[in-house]
Amino acid sequence: MTQYGRYGKLKAQPGKGNELAVILLQAAELLRTVQGCHLYIIGKDAKDEDTIWVTEVWDSKESHSNSLKDKAVQALILQAMPLLDGKPEGGTELEVLGGLGIA
Amino acid sequence: MTQYGRYGKLKAQPGKGNELAVILLQAAELLRTVQGCHLYIIGKDAKDEDTIWVTEVWDSKESHSNSLKDKAVQALILQAMPLLDGKPEGGTELEVLGGLGIA
Repeated sequence: MTQYGRYGKLKAQPGKGNELAVILLQAAELLRTVQGCHLYIIGKDAKDEDTIWVTEVWDSKESHSNSLKDKAVQALILQAMPLLDGKPEGGTELEVLGGLGIA
Repeated sequence: MTQYGRYGKLKAQPGKGNELAVILLQAAELLRTVQGCHLYIIGKDAKDEDTIWVTEVWDSKESHSNSLKDKAVQALILQAMPLLDGKPEGGTELEVLGGLGIA
């Protein structure tokens, strides 16, 4: 049984990378209470401190979609939007086959 | 204290994605015994079943570099190489700030 994964790349406005990362770390805390999320980690691109990557693993694509309907998640998205430099890219979707460090 | 993360993209020769993934899953098992590896997950690109992504989180960049000196790791790399379509891309390096699902 595979899981649903994604890499999301969020480009912040110049100098706003850390502020964006803080909001995403809050989102990670929130997701501890949301069904189906196994991994949600925040990383700063080693080559650009205003590019923040989110790595996610979910039970299924549906669990991920459902999380976006959560009011508290939506509130954090609204908070993050003005910090972004342009629209978020579509991201890379993965069929997670397994490995070390996930349930 | 941040951790070292990376996304590696490995393009297999046509039809060889699953075979490559199996070797990488063996690498993940091996890394359970190697110092400093917190996450090593294998995912198939949702848009191309011959593109395999490896998502890694390590204590430090040094721990990652050291792992490549391990004889058993080197043996698996040698096994994977002939399945690749061209050279592996450099990958994306991250400063992992935290989140859900990692130590």
